[in-house]
Amino acid sequence: MTERKPVGIGLVGFGTIGAGVVKVLQRNAEVIEQRLGFPLRLVRIADIDTATDRGVDVSHLRFDADSDGLIRDPEVDIVVELVGGYDFARKLILGAIDAGKHVATANKALLALHGKEIFDAAARQSVEVAFEASVGGGIPILRSLREGLNANRIESVHGIMNGTTNYILTEMEKTGEAFDVVVKRAQDLGYAEADPTFDIEGIDAAHKLTLLVAMAYGAELTYKEVPTEGISDLAPIDFDAARELGFRIKLLGIAKARRGEDGSERIEPRVHPTMIPATSLLANVDGAMNAVAVTGDIVGRTLFYGAGAGELPTASALVSDLIEIAREVRRGGAGRVAPLSYLPGELGPKPLIPMGEIVGRYYLRFTAVDRPGVLAHITSVLGEREISIESVIQKERADSAGSVPVLIMTHPAREWAIRSALEIIDRLDDVTAPTVLVRIEEEL
Amino acid sequence: MTERKPVGIGLVGFGTIGAGVVKVLQRNAEVIEQRLGFPLRLVRIADIDTATDRGVDVSHLRFDADSDGLIRDPEVDIVVELVGGYDFARKLILGAIDAGKHVATANKALLALHGKEIFDAAARQSVEVAFEASVGGGIPILRSLREGLNANRIESVHGIMNGTTNYILTEMEKTGEAFDVVVKRAQDLGYAEADPTFDIEGIDAAHKLTLLVAMAYGAELTYKEVPTEGISDLAPIDFDAARELGFRIKLLGIAKARRGEDGSERIEPRVHPTMIPATSLLANVDGAMNAVAVTGDIVGRTLFYGAGAGELPTASALVSDLIEIAREVRRGGAGRVAPLSYLPGELGPKPLIPMGEIVGRYYLRFTAVDRPGVLAHITSVLGEREISIESVIQKERADSAGSVPVLIMTHPAREWAIRSALEIIDRLDDVTAPTVLVRIEEEL
Repeated sequence: MTERKPVGIGLVGFGTIGAGVVKVLQRNAEVIEQRLGFPLRLVRIADIDTATDRGVDVSHLRFDADSDGLIRDPEVDIVVELVGGYDFARKLILGAIDAGKHVATANKALLALHGKEIFDAAARQSVEVAFEASVGGGIPILRSLREGLNANRIESVHGIMNGTTNYILTEMEKTGEAFDVVVKRAQDLGYAEADPTFDIEGIDAAHKLTLLVAMAYGAELTYKEVPTEGISDLAPIDFDAARELGFRIKLLGIAKARRGEDGSERIEPRVHPTMIPATSLLANVDGAMNAVAVTGDIVGRTLFYGAGAGELPTASALVSDLIEIAREVRRGGAGRVAPLSYLPGELGPKPLIPMGEIVGRYYLRFTAVDRPGVLAHITSVLGEREISIESVIQKERADSAGSVPVLIMTHPAREWAIRSALEIIDRLDDVTAPTVLVRIEEEL
Repeated sequence: MTERKPVGIGLVGFGTIGAGVVKVLQRNAEVIEQRLGFPLRLVRIADIDTATDRGVDVSHLRFDADSDGLIRDPEVDIVVELVGGYDFARKLILGAIDAGKHVATANKALLALHGKEIFDAAARQSVEVAFEASVGGGIPILRSLREGLNANRIESVHGIMNGTTNYILTEMEKTGEAFDVVVKRAQDLGYAEADPTFDIEGIDAAHKLTLLVAMAYGAELTYKEVPTEGISDLAPIDFDAARELGFRIKLLGIAKARRGEDGSERIEPRVHPTMIPATSLLANVDGAMNAVAVTGDIVGRTLFYGAGAGELPTASALVSDLIEIAREVRRGGAGRVAPLSYLPGELGPKPLIPMGEIVGRYYLRFTAVDRPGVLAHITSVLGEREISIESVIQKERADSAGSVPVLIMTHPAREWAIRSALEIIDRLDDVTAPTVLVRIEEEL
C-alpha cells in the first residue's frame, strides 16, 4: 500500500541525544507505526566523528560527515539538527529549510537568539520547524502551551527548566555542602559540563524562558532582554534559612503578564534563584527533574513535570515532533499550528516591565563585621527606603575574618528600593562582602 | 478576506460547562483568533430550559430547544455535546456525525460505554470526535498522551481523576472528620452532587481510566472491566495510620502494562483508594485538583496537574478541542490523529490481569472484639497464606460494642492470598465488621 511508504529522517549531530533518537526509532518502531500508520525511516546520519561507537547499530545506514549532502538528499523529508551551538547549526537549519526540508531541533540557544530568522524562513518555504525537545526535555510543555491551553490568556509561567542547577540546589539543601563541592560532584556524575557557565549562570534557563514567553504572550524578544541571575552566590546558610522560613530555593524562569487599565499588556520575564513555599508542587521537584507551572485565565493553575534532560527523555520529545511533522508530510501540508502559538503576523515586541518595578518579599544575606551597631546601621538604610523588615536571623558564627551573616526577610518591597539600599549598605565599612539577595514568590 | 470566515459552533446542553464555553468564546475571542487566524463563532444553542439566566449574554444567538435542527443547521460545523448521560447524548452525537458534523464532548460516561460505536461512526463519516474535556478537566492529558508521549510505550498511568473524592479525602485527612460529615459539606459547597454515587464509588474515575487505558495501550475495553472500589469505607483512623506510616490516601485510577517473555502485553486497570508515599508529587495534589502521572519507556516519569472539574477549566479543554477541529474544518481534512491514539485497526481487546494476581503491600483495618487471642487468631490466618506482617498498630479505643480496630501493614503479598485470608477472618466470631483494605503503591 502506498500509504505505508515511510517518511525519511536525516540526522545531523550524532551525540548523546542523536543516539537516543536512533534508539527510540529502532526500539519503538512498531508502536509508532500503530499510531502513525506508516514508518519513520532514518535514512542517513551526518557527523564529523564517524568513528566513535554510539552503542546503536547504524551499519545499514549511510553515515558520513556530509551534512550538505544530507539536507539535499531527496530521501530526507525531515532534518534533525542536534549539532548544538550557533553558527553551524544556523546555517544547517536555514540550508535545510531552503532545500524544502522540515526541521526538528533541540537547540534552544539558537532559537532564543535567531528564532525570528529561522521561523520566518520556514514560513516562506511552508515547512515546519519543531522544537519540543528544546524546553523541558521530555515534558510536552510546548505542545501543551500551543494546543492544550490555547483558549487561555496566559497569566504566568514559573519553570524549573535546568536539570543541572536543580540537581545542584537539591544536593546543597540535602547535604549542607558548599556550591563548589556540589558542582564538582555534578561534573563527576555527568550532570554538569566541564564548563558549567550556561547552566549555573541561568543562561540556559533564560534561553528556554525566551521561547516560552514568545509562545505564552506572542512576545518577540531575545534572551538578552531577560534579566538573568545564576545560583553561584548561594551558600549552605541560605538553604538553612529557607527551611526555617518554610521555603525551598529553586532556579526559576518566571514570566508574568500585567494588563493595564487600557488593556495594554506588559511582560515581566526573569531568571533567578527564588524562594518558594515548601509545600508547593514546584518546590518538591527534585534532582535533575524539571517542571513548568502555567496559570491561564480560564484553566487556572496547571503544572507539567518530567525529566528535563538526558538522552532518552529528550529523544522522546524529538521523536514526537518527527511523528507530528510526518503526518504533515503525508498530508502534503504544513503550518497547521503556528510554531510560536501566535500567528507570525501577531508576534511583535511587547513592553517589558523593568526589574526595578517588581514587588515582592526579599531574603537578604548581609555579611558584616560582628560589632555592635551594625544591624542598626543596615536596618536604618532599609527603613529610609520604606523597606520594612519581617524577620531577622543573626547566626553567631563568625568566619576567619570576624564577619557574621545577618539574614533579613523583608515585607513586600519594590526592587528599586531594595537595590538602592544594597548599593549603600554594600559600601559600608562594616559590610565585608556583597549582599546576597533571593526573591520570594508566594503564589505557587 | 475569505480565510477570516468563522467556523460555526452549535452548543447542545446549556448548563454550567456550556455557560463556561460561551464565556471563553466571548472573553478570549481576540487571543483565540490571534492563534487560529479566524474566529470561532457560536451560532446557536439548544437546551430544553430556555428560561434560566446563565450569566452570559446570548441574546444575539438562536437559542431554543431544537437540538435536531441544530445538528442539521448548515451554519454549524462543530456540535458541542454537553447534555451528559447516555441515551439522548448518544443519539445526539450519532445524529451529528451522521449529518457530517464534527463533535466535541465532555461525556466520559458515554464514551467509556459506547466509545467504539461513536468513534467507528466518526471514522466512516470522516469527522472528528474530540473529548479532551472528559478526563482531567483543564489538564491537556489526552493530547499529551496522544501527541506529546507518542514515541513511548506507556508503562503505567496513575491518576487522581475525580475532584469530588479528592476534596473529600483531603478534608477527612485535614479535619479528622467522618466520611458522612465531609460528604455533606462537599454537597453544601457544590463539590459533590445530591447523589454522589458516581464519584464516591469510583465510577467516574473508572470511566476516565477506561479512556486513558484505550489511549495508552490501544486496549478496547469498557469500564465494566475495570475493578472499581470507592472511598466510602474509609474512616479517620485510616488517615492517622497512613500519616504514621508515611503515606497519604488518594483515590487512584491505575493502569499498568506487563509484558510477557513472548512479547505479549497484559493490562492491569483498577480504581481504588490507595496509600502512596507522602513525599510523592501525586500525594501532594490536594482539594479538588487532579493530576495524572504517566510513565513511558523512553521519557520516564511525567506528571500533569490542574483543575479537574469546574465551569472554566473544563471549558478551557473543550475550547482547545474546538480550535483543533476548526483548523481541520478550514483545511478540509479530518482524522489527523487517531482519537484513541492508536489507529482504529490497531485497537483491540487486550488481556487483562485479574486483580487476584496483583502483588503489593496491603493496609488492613480489622474490627475485632477487645479480647486476648484475637490478634493471634488473625495473624495465624494471614500466616497460613504466607502473608507476612510488617507492622501492627493496635489502638486502645473500644467502640460502644466493645470492638477495637487492629491495623496491619503487610509485606508484599498477592491479592488472592489477602482476599482468601479476609474471607476467613471476616467470619470469625471475634471480628465484628468487614475488614477495610487499602492497597499501597510504592513507586510514585
